[in-house]
Amino acid sequence: MATSASDKQRRTNDPAGLRNRLLDVAFEAFATRGYGNTSMHDLNRLAGVTGGAVAHHFPSKKQLALAVIRERVGDAVEQTWIAPVVAADTALSGIKGVFQSIAAELDRRGAVAGCPLNNLVLELSGQDADYRQALDLIFETWRKAIADKVRHDQLGGRLSGLNADSIATLVIAVYSGAMAMAKSRQSAEPLRQSMQQLARLLREHDRTSPR
Amino acid sequence: MATSASDKQRRTNDPAGLRNRLLDVAFEAFATRGYGNTSMHDLNRLAGVTGGAVAHHFPSKKQLALAVIRERVGDAVEQTWIAPVVAADTALSGIKGVFQSIAAELDRRGAVAGCPLNNLVLELSGQDADYRQALDLIFETWRKAIADKVRHDQLGGRLSGLNADSIATLVIAVYSGAMAMAKSRQSAEPLRQSMQQLARLLREHDRTSPR
Repeated sequence: MATSASDKQRRTNDPAGLRNRLLDVAFEAFATRGYGNTSMHDLNRLAGVTGGAVAHHFPSKKQLALAVIRERVGDAVEQTWIAPVVAADTALSGIKGVFQSIAAELDRRGAVAGCPLNNLVLELSGQDADYRQALDLIFETWRKAIADKVRHDQLGGRLSGLNADSIATLVIAVYSGAMAMAKSRQSAEPLRQSMQQLARLLREHDRTSPR
Repeated sequence: MATSASDKQRRTNDPAGLRNRLLDVAFEAFATRGYGNTSMHDLNRLAGVTGGAVAHHFPSKKQLALAVIRERVGDAVEQTWIAPVVAADTALSGIKGVFQSIAAELDRRGAVAGCPLNNLVLELSGQDADYRQALDLIFETWRKAIADKVRHDQLGGRLSGLNADSIATLVIAVYSGAMAMAKSRQSAEPLRQSMQQLARLLREHDRTSPR
C-alpha cells in the first residue's frame, strides 16, 4: 500500500501513470460492485492514494465515469471480442471461440461479475444522456465489427441468406443476455447452452461447412 | 397527494392495501431508477405517505427488495411472458408475439427502462446471495415455461432436433440482451432485429410450417 510520500512522488513524476492506475481501479470497481456502490473515497482507498488524487485527475465522478467508459470499457470489448473475431477464420468460429474462452475464464474465477458494458448500461443509461451515448457507441463499434466479418464470410457462401447487421445484433444480444443469466446463476452454463444453440442454428446457413 | 390524516386512516383501515401500494411504487422505482438510487425516504414521498409507513411494513430495505422481487418481478414475468407463451398456438408464435407487443409498448412510451428482472440482476446479484437466489428462481420459472412449450411443439414435429431447455435459455438470453441494447439505444429496434433473426433460424426447424 502506498504512503502519502510515495503518492506525492507519483503524482509529481508520473501523472499519466497515476491517471491510468486510477482508471484501472475505477473500471474494476464499477464493473464488479457497480458505479453507484463506489464512492470517490473508495477509489482513493482502492488505488492506495491520498484524498486529493482522484479529484485532481477527475474533478467529478461523472468525468471519471466517462473516461472509464471511453478509455477502458471500449478497450475491453475490443480485446475480448473484436480482435479475436476479426482474426478468426470465420465469424462463427470467432464468436464460438470468444464464448468458450469467456466461459472458461468464469469457471477459473469461480464467480461471474457480468459484462462491464452491460452492467454499466443497465445502471447508467437511464440516468444521463452522456453516459448513454458513450456506452451506445461501444455497442455500435462491436456490432459493426461482427457485421463486417459476417459480410466477409458471405462472399464465400457462408451464413448465406442472412442479414449481416441483424445477425450481429442477435449475437451481441445472446451474449449480453446469457451473461446476465450467468451472473444470476453464478455459472457459465447459460453462456455455453446459448452458444451451442446459436452455433447450431447458424451452421445450417454455412454452405461450405459439414453439417 | 395523500395527507398525513388520510395516510393514518389508510394504515389503520387497509394495511394490506397500503403494503401493496408500497410494493407497486418500489417496483416501479427500482425498475426505472434502480435500487441503489432509491431511498426509503424517496419511496415514502413517491407513495405519498408519512415517514414511518414504509418502515412499518418493511423494517429494512432488504426486506422490501425481496418482497418486490418475489411479489412483483415474478408476476411481471408471468404476465408479460409466461401466460402469452402458454396460451399461444406454438412456442414460436408466442415468443414472437411477446417481442412484438413489448417493442410496440416501448414505441408508445418513447423510452426504454429495460427489463425489471435483468436490471435488478445486474444491480443486485453480485451484492447479496438472497437477492441472487430470489432473482434466479424467476429466470428458472421463465425458462421452464418456455422449455415445456417447446417440448409440447416437438410432439407435433415443430422445432425438431433442438434441445428444448437450451432453446429456452437462448430465447431468454436474446430477449434480455436485446433489452439491454434497446435501453442503450433508447429504441425498440434491437428487439425487432434480434427476434426477426431468431424466428427465421427457428422456423427452419418447423417441419409443419411453410418456409
